[in-house]
Amino acid sequence: MITTTEYLWFETKQRKEFVRITNKISSIVKKSGVREGLVFVSAMHITAGVYVNDWEDGLIEDFQVWLEKLAPAGLDYQHHNTGEDNADAHLKRTIMGHQVILPITDGALDLGPWEQVFYAEFDGCRKKRVVVKVMGTA
Amino acid sequence: MITTTEYLWFETKQRKEFVRITNKISSIVKKSGVREGLVFVSAMHITAGVYVNDWEDGLIEDFQVWLEKLAPAGLDYQHHNTGEDNADAHLKRTIMGHQVILPITDGALDLGPWEQVFYAEFDGCRKKRVVVKVMGTA
Amino acid sequence: MITTTEYLWFETKQRKEFVRITNKISSIVKKSGVREGLVFVSAMHITAGVYVNDWEDGLIEDFQVWLEKLAPAGLDYQHHNTGEDNADAHLKRTIMGHQVILPITDGALDLGPWEQVFYAEFDGCRKKRVVVKVMGTA
Repeated sequence: MITTTEYLWFETKQRKEFVRITNKISSIVKKSGVREGLVFVSAMHITAGVYVNDWEDGLIEDFQVWLEKLAPAGLDYQHHNTGEDNADAHLKRTIMGHQVILPITDGALDLGPWEQVFYAEFDGCRKKRVVVKVMGTA
Repeated sequence: MITTTEYLWFETKQRKEFVRITNKISSIVKKSGVREGLVFVSAMHITAGVYVNDWEDGLIEDFQVWLEKLAPAGLDYQHHNTGEDNADAHLKRTIMGHQVILPITDGALDLGPWEQVFYAEFDGCRKKRVVVKVMGTA
Repeated sequence: MITTTEYLWFETKQRKEFVRITNKISSIVKKSGVREGLVFVSAMHITAGVYVNDWEDGLIEDFQVWLEKLAPAGLDYQHHNTGEDNADAHLKRTIMGHQVILPITDGALDLGPWEQVFYAEFDGCRKKRVVVKVMGTA
């Protein structure tokens, strides 16, 4: 069995920003030499997520509006007694999820026609990591 | 290590429909010959999900009502400027999740007493796929 | 490839309670001898979850308040026609997620600086299990 581990670094310009990373994951898979297996992609910071959905700007805007409605910023959260102001980011990333697995078949990502992988930042403007681990057979 | 890949096809009669697939996954696991490992089950379309919960009609109805409250159809979503009318389906599947892993122990699905796997369709009446990948040892 | 399977038992004193389990998972990983791979952690009961987030009491309280708002107890759920009164627990665990994967690199959990794993009980005061499966190479 082959396993390889890589880390992607992000430092978004905006506090909330979704970044498409499908091609980066695809490159890591090709480099690994794995032809049958899985690639695991997980945010290592707890105010960021990783999700699979549509690469369409309108829907990305819909997600942002919707998350603000379900988990609003600026409420009187207990977490803010620590000096933090990002409790909503912890909640938003919980809705979106913070990790995905993508199947690898015949040496490539085995995705549906519209599946795209995104890094979802909810408290950005600082450096954060995503771990990418490939496991499978050559 | 053994890896096997299969695809399940769905074409639901209703736009929103939850379909129990535990037995199908169980059959794929048995066919694979894997005795220790994992089976990965993931919707390949971004308006559908896969989740684990109770096989009880009342609760399934509760899920539908609840999702309609958290992610209503018929709002003025940006995504609909593309001609689509299914933004709510993208949001609903995000809450339910679109992939699960089931453990395989002693050659069978290692599930708790009430765990059942469901395919969750939110924009149906057309053909969609779920990928099922088994990984483990004989 | 090495695979090992263990089960963690919980019987919380309160109906809703979040229990940190990072150290228990870490011990299982070390015992397994796996140096490169993944550990899969999944609630086997459908009114409980497993999630990764901050080990900070204020935020844990924020999560509880927030979940009660998104998936309130005490509504007139269809599921309660069966005699159950825990439909909200099924919904809450869906938002938090019921399973996570943690990467293993160089023989240890490969977590970000603030990542902690929690068992999330939403209908406790009875015995429940979590399955922990390690897969990888020595």
